[in-house]
Amino acid sequence: MTATLFEDLRAALGPGGVVCGDEALDLAKSPWTRLGSPVAVLRPRSTQGVSAILRLAKAAGQAVVPWGGRTGLVDGARADGALALSLERMNAIEEIDPASGVMRVQAGCILQTACEAAEDAGLLLPLDLGSRGSATIGGNISTNAGGNRVLRYGMMRDMVLGLEAVLADGTVVDALNPLIKNNAGYDIKQLFIGTEGTLGVVTRAVLRLRPRPASHNVAMLAVDGFDNLSPLLRRLDRGLGGALSAFEVFWPEFYELVTTPPARGAPPLPRGHDFYVLTEAMGGDIDADGERFEQVLAGALEAEEIVDAVIAKSDAERAALWALRDDVGQTSRDGPILAFDVSLKPAAWMAAAWWCSDTWATAIST
Amino acid sequence: MTATLFEDLRAALGPGGVVCGDEALDLAKSPWTRLGSPVAVLRPRSTQGVSAILRLAKAAGQAVVPWGGRTGLVDGARADGALALSLERMNAIEEIDPASGVMRVQAGCILQTACEAAEDAGLLLPLDLGSRGSATIGGNISTNAGGNRVLRYGMMRDMVLGLEAVLADGTVVDALNPLIKNNAGYDIKQLFIGTEGTLGVVTRAVLRLRPRPASHNVAMLAVDGFDNLSPLLRRLDRGLGGALSAFEVFWPEFYELVTTPPARGAPPLPRGHDFYVLTEAMGGDIDADGERFEQVLAGALEAEEIVDAVIAKSDAERAALWALRDDVGQTSRDGPILAFDVSLKPAAWMAAAWWCSDTWATAIST
Repeated sequence: MTATLFEDLRAALGPGGVVCGDEALDLAKSPWTRLGSPVAVLRPRSTQGVSAILRLAKAAGQAVVPWGGRTGLVDGARADGALALSLERMNAIEEIDPASGVMRVQAGCILQTACEAAEDAGLLLPLDLGSRGSATIGGNISTNAGGNRVLRYGMMRDMVLGLEAVLADGTVVDALNPLIKNNAGYDIKQLFIGTEGTLGVVTRAVLRLRPRPASHNVAMLAVDGFDNLSPLLRRLDRGLGGALSAFEVFWPEFYELVTTPPARGAPPLPRGHDFYVLTEAMGGDIDADGERFEQVLAGALEAEEIVDAVIAKSDAERAALWALRDDVGQTSRDGPILAFDVSLKPAAWMAAAWWCSDTWATAIST
Repeated sequence: MTATLFEDLRAALGPGGVVCGDEALDLAKSPWTRLGSPVAVLRPRSTQGVSAILRLAKAAGQAVVPWGGRTGLVDGARADGALALSLERMNAIEEIDPASGVMRVQAGCILQTACEAAEDAGLLLPLDLGSRGSATIGGNISTNAGGNRVLRYGMMRDMVLGLEAVLADGTVVDALNPLIKNNAGYDIKQLFIGTEGTLGVVTRAVLRLRPRPASHNVAMLAVDGFDNLSPLLRRLDRGLGGALSAFEVFWPEFYELVTTPPARGAPPLPRGHDFYVLTEAMGGDIDADGERFEQVLAGALEAEEIVDAVIAKSDAERAALWALRDDVGQTSRDGPILAFDVSLKPAAWMAAAWWCSDTWATAIST
């Protein structure tokens, strides 16, 4: 980085806006992800700051890598020799409109913070994933995050009504649409969702909120025989009338791993089954007592699609079942992780089952 | 059109592929939409045919306008002095995969035909709109159609998993992804959804199908007082646990229009109320007897958000209620239609209510 660029960035971003040298390298230390050695870490407070960074960096021919929560596992935040553009100081929840069910947030807002703010307003921001405590809304958008509830609520793309982004030359694109149904002109926001910052840096977003579900049922199921998984999923999808929100298949090796010390989880069902399925339904007032959820599982038991089941009876039990799924970090106990994420048509699951092995959890989202 | 272009198109498209002169003008006659006077109507049988048309037309500097069902009301198919590219002969349903819940169709397939094919396979293609019998899948994609069930199932964009499109120079873009969760590279298909053919002509699509709902409840509600509409919508959304699929508000003038001869509809509730709401829930097995639907409406009655209600008790009664909504053509009885489509945040509805008047139906999709 030239001295001129450095001075220009300092002038544009103000105190604490430019972090260099060892201090920058310290910020790039992570147990999770390889962040490389950034030339500097830039911490703008506003969209104008992001615009200044990109304009100045482009003029100087200096690469820029956006940073959100820095807990992604695919090196998306690796900023070796680049300016790291951290959105951490742009983390405000700017507005929640309960009547319209929308929330406007800055990109650096942590997912969990946004979810809690929605909850406080009596609503639901349905995105949920293991890194909820560190991942940012901007990162969720840039990666089009899926997470645990894709089945019911879709991916991040489905929750973004509008956004603001800054192009490589500093141009600010205002596409902060707050409407669910909007066909006025090109839907520009789509270009910035799931494109990992390559077409622009997301700075703000308008998110769609949902009614908070009045019922929340979670169960762990034991399944013997791969061929039962697909019919089981269809049974739950159909039987729960749109409330099915998760269907996470555990390979037995993964189940054993996350229920064996030093992992803290206890096995909710005996070991030794072919598969375990963590399933969840988030309904309206319609199944507040979970009666229907039990009926649907009883049907699966009768049809021998499952051989055992345990239904969580409290928030603590629900959290304990989900903690098993979230404890995917256990897979790094015996060596480095090779992280990837595969999507397949259900018809191709069988081939995948032969191929997958050892310590492996997979989320099947049909 | 030059003689060379004409000959090249004839050679590329084969018998029946190029319709000219009076015959073309006849095809451009429509009671619904202004189609202009096309130079010729082209009827390709394949993606290769579409590619040839666009390549040849571009080389000749000749404008092309794609035609789907030609029942849109906003002049999107107006082909004055242009080549009309009709997808009518590309109407095959190429594949339905019930295990994966996906369907691959050609763009000229009529929406209703696609819906019926999904139903025959035990599944649901949830897009529904008044022009279902003429609108094509390609047109639905190009306009990102919303329709009657946006509340529950989203817009056409949410149903398109992948597509094939042809660019202006004849390049075929193959983005026929069949997966719900796919973040591999740029999501190119988004460029062709809702962009009215301006970025390319959609030729094929892979659509996401849903489980067929086991329950289907429809009611007409009478509402006195504009301020009750928004709380009523929230009550239904919350109370029906994700099953709410429609909430169509009728202004009283529209209600009277579609229930007075020569309109064929009879008024299901007495006239004289401020508003009428056609509402629908499509649940799973969970509310097959409609008990919950009735309970939620009883709650609305008790809270005085509604003052009267009639629940359809048979398929015929459900169809009769929906026929009132679909009979929007009655608005042209007293003169030409000025057609438009407005989306507003719920907070802005009040302003809209003051502004709207006379013969007017509006679909509120929060």
